[in-house]
Amino acid sequence: MKIRVVVPLAHARFNQETAEEFGRWTAPGTEASVVNLDEGPQSIESECEDALVVPDFLRKAKEAEAAGCDAVVCDCFADPGVRAARELVEIPVIGPGEAAMLLAAALGHKFSVVTVLCQVFPLINAVAWRAGVDRKLASIRSVDIPVLELSDKARMISALHSQMVRAIREDHAEVLVLGCTGMMGVAAQLQKTLKSDGFDVPVVDPVAASMKLAETTVALGVRQSRLAYHKPKAYLAARTAA
Amino acid sequence: MKIRVVVPLAHARFNQETAEEFGRWTAPGTEASVVNLDEGPQSIESECEDALVVPDFLRKAKEAEAAGCDAVVCDCFADPGVRAARELVEIPVIGPGEAAMLLAAALGHKFSVVTVLCQVFPLINAVAWRAGVDRKLASIRSVDIPVLELSDKARMISALHSQMVRAIREDHAEVLVLGCTGMMGVAAQLQKTLKSDGFDVPVVDPVAASMKLAETTVALGVRQSRLAYHKPKAYLAARTAA
Amino acid sequence: MKIRVVVPLAHARFNQETAEEFGRWTAPGTEASVVNLDEGPQSIESECEDALVVPDFLRKAKEAEAAGCDAVVCDCFADPGVRAARELVEIPVIGPGEAAMLLAAALGHKFSVVTVLCQVFPLINAVAWRAGVDRKLASIRSVDIPVLELSDKARMISALHSQMVRAIREDHAEVLVLGCTGMMGVAAQLQKTLKSDGFDVPVVDPVAASMKLAETTVALGVRQSRLAYHKPKAYLAARTAA
Amino acid sequence: MKIRVVVPLAHARFNQETAEEFGRWTAPGTEASVVNLDEGPQSIESECEDALVVPDFLRKAKEAEAAGCDAVVCDCFADPGVRAARELVEIPVIGPGEAAMLLAAALGHKFSVVTVLCQVFPLINAVAWRAGVDRKLASIRSVDIPVLELSDKARMISALHSQMVRAIREDHAEVLVLGCTGMMGVAAQLQKTLKSDGFDVPVVDPVAASMKLAETTVALGVRQSRLAYHKPKAYLAARTAA
Amino acid sequence: MKIRVVVPLAHARFNQETAEEFGRWTAPGTEASVVNLDEGPQSIESECEDALVVPDFLRKAKEAEAAGCDAVVCDCFADPGVRAARELVEIPVIGPGEAAMLLAAALGHKFSVVTVLCQVFPLINAVAWRAGVDRKLASIRSVDIPVLELSDKARMISALHSQMVRAIREDHAEVLVLGCTGMMGVAAQLQKTLKSDGFDVPVVDPVAASMKLAETTVALGVRQSRLAYHKPKAYLAARTAA
Amino acid sequence: MKIRVVVPLAHARFNQETAEEFGRWTAPGTEASVVNLDEGPQSIESECEDALVVPDFLRKAKEAEAAGCDAVVCDCFADPGVRAARELVEIPVIGPGEAAMLLAAALGHKFSVVTVLCQVFPLINAVAWRAGVDRKLASIRSVDIPVLELSDKARMISALHSQMVRAIREDHAEVLVLGCTGMMGVAAQLQKTLKSDGFDVPVVDPVAASMKLAETTVALGVRQSRLAYHKPKAYLAARTAA
Repeated sequence: MKIRVVVPLAHARFNQETAEEFGRWTAPGTEASVVNLDEGPQSIESECEDALVVPDFLRKAKEAEAAGCDAVVCDCFADPGVRAARELVEIPVIGPGEAAMLLAAALGHKFSVVTVLCQVFPLINAVAWRAGVDRKLASIRSVDIPVLELSDKARMISALHSQMVRAIREDHAEVLVLGCTGMMGVAAQLQKTLKSDGFDVPVVDPVAASMKLAETTVALGVRQSRLAYHKPKAYLAARTAA
Repeated sequence: MKIRVVVPLAHARFNQETAEEFGRWTAPGTEASVVNLDEGPQSIESECEDALVVPDFLRKAKEAEAAGCDAVVCDCFADPGVRAARELVEIPVIGPGEAAMLLAAALGHKFSVVTVLCQVFPLINAVAWRAGVDRKLASIRSVDIPVLELSDKARMISALHSQMVRAIREDHAEVLVLGCTGMMGVAAQLQKTLKSDGFDVPVVDPVAASMKLAETTVALGVRQSRLAYHKPKAYLAARTAA
Repeated sequence: MKIRVVVPLAHARFNQETAEEFGRWTAPGTEASVVNLDEGPQSIESECEDALVVPDFLRKAKEAEAAGCDAVVCDCFADPGVRAARELVEIPVIGPGEAAMLLAAALGHKFSVVTVLCQVFPLINAVAWRAGVDRKLASIRSVDIPVLELSDKARMISALHSQMVRAIREDHAEVLVLGCTGMMGVAAQLQKTLKSDGFDVPVVDPVAASMKLAETTVALGVRQSRLAYHKPKAYLAARTAA
Repeated sequence: MKIRVVVPLAHARFNQETAEEFGRWTAPGTEASVVNLDEGPQSIESECEDALVVPDFLRKAKEAEAAGCDAVVCDCFADPGVRAARELVEIPVIGPGEAAMLLAAALGHKFSVVTVLCQVFPLINAVAWRAGVDRKLASIRSVDIPVLELSDKARMISALHSQMVRAIREDHAEVLVLGCTGMMGVAAQLQKTLKSDGFDVPVVDPVAASMKLAETTVALGVRQSRLAYHKPKAYLAARTAA
Repeated sequence: MKIRVVVPLAHARFNQETAEEFGRWTAPGTEASVVNLDEGPQSIESECEDALVVPDFLRKAKEAEAAGCDAVVCDCFADPGVRAARELVEIPVIGPGEAAMLLAAALGHKFSVVTVLCQVFPLINAVAWRAGVDRKLASIRSVDIPVLELSDKARMISALHSQMVRAIREDHAEVLVLGCTGMMGVAAQLQKTLKSDGFDVPVVDPVAASMKLAETTVALGVRQSRLAYHKPKAYLAARTAA
Repeated sequence: MKIRVVVPLAHARFNQETAEEFGRWTAPGTEASVVNLDEGPQSIESECEDALVVPDFLRKAKEAEAAGCDAVVCDCFADPGVRAARELVEIPVIGPGEAAMLLAAALGHKFSVVTVLCQVFPLINAVAWRAGVDRKLASIRSVDIPVLELSDKARMISALHSQMVRAIREDHAEVLVLGCTGMMGVAAQLQKTLKSDGFDVPVVDPVAASMKLAETTVALGVRQSRLAYHKPKAYLAARTAA
């Protein structure tokens, strides 16, 4: 099957690492391709930037469908554009935030999300509510590092570890979720470190979770319900007319 | 005080009636001005169209602020762009959906929203959740008339009345909310008809509710909390750089 | 329009300041008059005192209606007698607790109430539940100053500020609500001080919020639903017979 | 032990039957005495009447305590005055509405309350919320018979049976609760009739439930928490001064 | 009436003290008998042990019914086997966890449970949810003492007291619940000590609460609803065939 | 990877079809093996039978772990024994009920479960609560066919289709979930039939969902949190001693 990953940013800086990371999680026979937006934000750390993703993401989702892809993943934990694209295309559209939280819900009674900046807490709260598992969300915590500075992996891991320990101790989290798809390739190490600290808890990587949920929907032949995500008739009519 | 109403559609067809309607509800000393978008959807009946409002609505909100307006109202019950604009400007940004539901919550224990099409139910559910009064939302019902056909007032009123009676009888609604800002000038008549039916219940007009909430925030000197709607730093930096 | 404010206490000590405060918030054309109870408690800091308000408050609400007032406000954050009076009269009956919390819900995702004494926490929790926004209530905090000692404004402001900072830091409040209508004339100053502390958050004054909600209901021609607040038939029959 | 039952009405018409009914449920060694109010409503079918109970009920609760009673029961399903009296006295104060709903919660996942008139639905919803079991409340239904006409037992039983069957079939109730303490002596018969209809479900009598909860609290040596129901200091000071 | 208490452990070590403790709470005319399991766990501190109780507990419940008992109590706070046994027998089956939490709900707005080990928190959360009062559960705390070491009463009381004070101060508990039926005979003393600390709060003993709830159901002639706990037809058929 | 599927019944009648069904959903490289219980119920349609699964299921889970399996699936929608086994083994233990509901939560805002008999509704409600998505559960419906009669596929499909249409129309379900793992091989056909009825909605097969969730956890290297599912120390000590 073919999975199209859209990095919802107007630059290609993360494409290579993103392709490698998604590639790590594919089952045999799954092929992941990565594209970025032509127009959109540099990073997504606000409602403003979240909203600016949508117009071009809709185009990219249509292109993926036209190219025969079986599913689309929007590579951002806030799942920008996911709801709108679900209306537009006939293939599953997957959000890493939703995918990661649903997986976390299967692994314990309470989970915490550790993300980049406190500015995005409201976006993440909304993802938890839409996923339906907000009751299991113990807390959201921030490492206070902007997306574009996550390339300093040592700093990121150290900050994540520190907040994860606090989420366990202070917020009673039983499962940890990385709250940004830019936090690539660090889940396993953090899980190992926490275990050596005496906390035998899973750390969920949203990149991996979204790839597996995409594969699952394709394998099962299911996608978003049309009673939840109706065809946008007026929108489509306007596009056709134009 | 000066209130800027933005009709979040890429045409001026509703401007005149919208200006008259908002004008009916202003307190002495309040001046309402109405503008529409340059770019955006023809109507808002899907997540796709909801999202397409945002880029130009952000510009219009900034223009309103620069023009010395005291508050901005986004003239659509789904409150598109409201969250993003709250980050961007220093003046209150008001959504009619949220304003109408909060007023409805003050008038009874359960309210129903009657809107245009079932496609928008998920958008309205999300508004109720963000307002915080989803527990009081008895039901959402549809008259099954697209926004652009609401000009047939007799048909609209008849369909609204019929669904409102069902909301009261079947869903135990105690308060009714008009679920589209295009349903202009009909609340009072519906309230009167329902009373003559034996249902002495308030009918909340979202246009009126949003104008009064805008006036209230300005009079009290309050606006959206910056801990809920943070300044979009990266967004602003990118705009300045560009 | 004419708004009758009832101070639900059996003394006139607060009438003057109350009249001035409500007067600050009226729109042009609104006239506020203030009366106190003939029988009732000295202050309201318990369920006992809350209940003792009701008999005479009902009389005062009927008098206001007979005198041609357009709405009645019960000047206490616990909204004593408001539900009962809503049954009895045909004009809107407004509670400052409900009005302030609904406004707070429009300004952020989480709000805290700072009130006089911890004894009244259960009363305030019940107001939040009846308003329907209990999910957004981050915490209730107390300055530990009885109502009748609030005249020491410097002490009150200092204690409020201290608890508000803790509500923001420890309880994640984004909006602050003054939890007693005796905390008059201090919201703006607290908002300013908090901003200079780095917390750009709104502080909601329940006196102001209730006046604006009263004006809003009158302007829109709505009042409490008769399906939520039924006419008290047996009560009225007994009164007529007596 | 001595249990004082206060009929919260300003007449003695129900005292005899009430004494007999409470007497049916006492354990050996328990003595129940019944008094009515000197001042108060004729029946309780509204928020107005609910509130008018409180002043004299507080006196009756104090008298019971002074007379050495071990607990007080307020003989009305809406539990009027119960919260206020809990502040005032050192002995348990029991409400039949709360007692019946907590017992119902132990017998199944969902219960329905069948009461006299729809006017009291908001009062009963508030009792369910205060008890904490509102999530288990499937529905409230009404027989549409005023309290003072419940003496026609055949009519009452027939109407109760009919609504109970609908609560089971339409609202998925598994347990039924009689929603008025004036519905005396009919629970067992209704339970039997429902069983012969094929519905093997318990019917909870609030009179019986409140007597047993009163005995339970006395036997265990527990009463309302002072952190939930604080001593009303100002109230007591005012009473002492007067 | 005859109440059968089943200690759900495969040893008789607690039978004597259990019989004495349940005997302390019986009303005149109630006779309590205590048996233990033939097969089952030594103590219940995990989901594994909880589940191992069921097969033999079902037999013991059937035996109690056959012996003419009026109700069965499963003497463990996690209420193991209670749901299954409710299907099987025609007499009430009572769980101390559910009984204690429902009583606690009647005494305040928030309660905390203090139990043996943090391993059982998920079991207790599930009991609270099934009882329907999870919204009132402020916290669960642990004394970190295994069941089989509770015989050191001084250590247990000291640890309970310490956690109860923290539950009041940090978690806003208003009512305390002993979270293990092995914590016998200490509730009154803890309540007294807390009062001398300035915390006038009830401490609920699950042994006492379950005995009184058993008596209440028998006295009222009610038991678990068959619409909540259906007869296990296939199970019974298999047993009869075998 | 190796996935062990345990049919939690004391007979091998379903093993063959179960192996084929699970085999349909495996990714390349996944090997599924199926075993049944030595001791346990014939079918699971009650709390009694649910509980009787556990002792031998724990043994089978340990055996799977010892045999080098990477995950265990308990092949019953009520997820019997899953919580206990999660404590016991170091590999993921997956329940089809939880897996199916979490997947359904990703596909729409509301889902309904259609199961065999109404007796199991409480078991399914508990699964939804443990998964954390109970808020999205629109309804549970029954085809009124015992598990052991599901072999009549035509009858089953017809009854499922009829209830699914009602779930959509009456309960506002947007996603359908097959509520019994014995409903094998029918999801795709039902989805197709519903689409031809005009309902373009996904139908989730719990067998498929659990296989994919098992693969996902193994691929990601995560399993149940030890802070949610603690090691059962006393249980293990007792087993080792014996």
